[in-house]
Amino acid sequence: MITSTSGGVTAPAGFRAAGVHCGIKVQNLDLAVLVANRPAAAAGVFTTNKVQAAPVLVSKDHLARGGRLASAVVVNSGCANACTGPAGLEVAREMAAHAAARFGCPPEQVLVASTGVIGVLLDIAKVRRGIDEAAGRARREGHEDAARAIRTTDPFAKACAVTVDTARGRFTVGGMAKGSGMIEPNLATMLAVLTTDAGADPIVLQRALGEAVADTFNAITVDGECSTNDTVFALASGASGVEIGDDLYPALVEGLRAVGRELAIAIVRGGEGATKLVTVRVTGAASAAEARQAARTIANSPLVKTAVHGGDPNWGRLVAATGRAGVAFSLERAAVRVGGIELFKDGVPHDDRAPLAAAHLARAEVEIEVHLGTGGDGAATIWTCDLSAEYVRINADYRT
Amino acid sequence: MITSTSGGVTAPAGFRAAGVHCGIKVQNLDLAVLVANRPAAAAGVFTTNKVQAAPVLVSKDHLARGGRLASAVVVNSGCANACTGPAGLEVAREMAAHAAARFGCPPEQVLVASTGVIGVLLDIAKVRRGIDEAAGRARREGHEDAARAIRTTDPFAKACAVTVDTARGRFTVGGMAKGSGMIEPNLATMLAVLTTDAGADPIVLQRALGEAVADTFNAITVDGECSTNDTVFALASGASGVEIGDDLYPALVEGLRAVGRELAIAIVRGGEGATKLVTVRVTGAASAAEARQAARTIANSPLVKTAVHGGDPNWGRLVAATGRAGVAFSLERAAVRVGGIELFKDGVPHDDRAPLAAAHLARAEVEIEVHLGTGGDGAATIWTCDLSAEYVRINADYRT
Repeated sequence: MITSTSGGVTAPAGFRAAGVHCGIKVQNLDLAVLVANRPAAAAGVFTTNKVQAAPVLVSKDHLARGGRLASAVVVNSGCANACTGPAGLEVAREMAAHAAARFGCPPEQVLVASTGVIGVLLDIAKVRRGIDEAAGRARREGHEDAARAIRTTDPFAKACAVTVDTARGRFTVGGMAKGSGMIEPNLATMLAVLTTDAGADPIVLQRALGEAVADTFNAITVDGECSTNDTVFALASGASGVEIGDDLYPALVEGLRAVGRELAIAIVRGGEGATKLVTVRVTGAASAAEARQAARTIANSPLVKTAVHGGDPNWGRLVAATGRAGVAFSLERAAVRVGGIELFKDGVPHDDRAPLAAAHLARAEVEIEVHLGTGGDGAATIWTCDLSAEYVRINADYRT
Repeated sequence: MITSTSGGVTAPAGFRAAGVHCGIKVQNLDLAVLVANRPAAAAGVFTTNKVQAAPVLVSKDHLARGGRLASAVVVNSGCANACTGPAGLEVAREMAAHAAARFGCPPEQVLVASTGVIGVLLDIAKVRRGIDEAAGRARREGHEDAARAIRTTDPFAKACAVTVDTARGRFTVGGMAKGSGMIEPNLATMLAVLTTDAGADPIVLQRALGEAVADTFNAITVDGECSTNDTVFALASGASGVEIGDDLYPALVEGLRAVGRELAIAIVRGGEGATKLVTVRVTGAASAAEARQAARTIANSPLVKTAVHGGDPNWGRLVAATGRAGVAFSLERAAVRVGGIELFKDGVPHDDRAPLAAAHLARAEVEIEVHLGTGGDGAATIWTCDLSAEYVRINADYRT
């Protein structure tokens, strides 16, 4: 059984955290540290962009060379340290090495992540100072500062935790994330750190993280952009005494998924210019993969996103976006529902129901379903937000 | 040699045209007819959307069954006749049949196209009345009315023509198009009709049209949406006496390409909310196909389009969009140029040049080049427009 609980990345036992201001940003917290009391099993998933920022490259290398164990995670905001060449790599390595010296672990047991302006070298002197200060402050209560410190201009900090009750005892999963509400930087970088006090082999943790991410962080979109810095880490301390064997593997996935989903949806809610959380559900697809592809195409369609913003129950745009998604789609057996109201079924419009659907679209949380009518039962859900003039303003007015 | 000339779809000999108001729209011209004095070789390319409007299905069928000859093209605006089921198909067939009776040709020699609101059945009585009136008015001077009649809310009508001088004489290519400046409808439908007085075998014409479209109508994007009604027709009357053999095939392609390019770029200029014409050039790709894919990803990136709108020479967004395009890309040997000004080369930013690039971006026509640094010489050009708050307003405020 999964139950929400208070706290964030330090809700699971065995972790401390801190968030500090070290001068990368003019003001506001800009460096977060998560410390594991003992080396924790570690896993990571990273951006698929061909351009990968220095901290992404260094963290991948450390996971591979450090035996998939981590003693600390250091995250800065205000500078992405991306497209910075060999000098940027050197800085990311030193960021880990300095933390390693501070926390008494090998450099390979430190994972790093950065978010902020692209193409600017991270000031390592400031990072060293920040790590020193954070080391002195890291404690269980520091999770709120840590969640604040990884924000750029996210409208709110994102943290949550759940407890998972199993036949062999209770463990906790916590997490924090930053999303895509940014004026200063160039990219809607998504960063998240998940923790648990379950004990898990790192390979098992990596597999569970991959499964959980597929339905959560990989099931959201704000604007279809994939950053150079996207990173999700998971650390398992084992401090609860609950060891993940084959029997508890599903519980671990569910715990990670519950925290991941809450954080992922919070990222969408805080999307640039977002006024609505939109759940796009595709059913009746030939496969789950095709359902996901159709849902993603609908969720990224500017015409769909602007219609939702305007409260327009425009099933034509939904049908047209689905039609160009490159998946099997049978219009004659398809259906479009907005807030559960069927606007189109088996090739026949029901425009008399449009006012009901428009009333649903006036809400802050809206639901869209497209049934593809293929005879298959593939289904997928993608969360997105509407496209507003504010999105354009945020992204056009930067530096002008 | 290709030379611009005046006129549009009737600049080539052998064609007449008219544009009339028949009541599909409350006011403004809404039905265009192009008539070939004798059956002309005909070709067509159509939307790749899985949802295809009734006129698309009927025109494909007529091309196949009519021996690839056309005596007339009928286009209406104000109603897309899409997602209208068997009744919509019946109306599209009757639209052709009524014109065929009027112009004295088999129904299969009439091509039809529609643009406007999706999911609404086209009123065939109005269409019949419009065809009757247009039949009485069709003449060589009618091309301007025809180009106006296929607009929805395009900010301007789009028509042009060129003469092509060859070793065996001169022929003319003309055309008209409508684009994506629409408040009323649901889709940025693109329609175009090209004509020539060269004589060509229909199979040769189809091949030439395919080649010309690849570099013109298929090389533009406003918002990445692909309509249910997109259609480009080409008709060749042979009235110039110049017959297209193997020797003149390249001249035919170049003539179609010249007219296609001018109309396609005009569509982008008239894009919804567009304030700038953006030429995205990708070079140094592993292949032409990869260059095209990268250019299209850049051209559809909301972060790139908003940066251009804001006049921000944000090379980071260009690099990041390229990185997620799914093509070979070597950052260490890549280059980004805005208006010819190199902002990033071989992994090194040149931000001191940003003010020069910003000055270029203040213009109404801007050029962006990304060199992928793969060692290959694949190249492609895509034309797009910026993303403005006006785009959101146009597409969100419809029906509210």
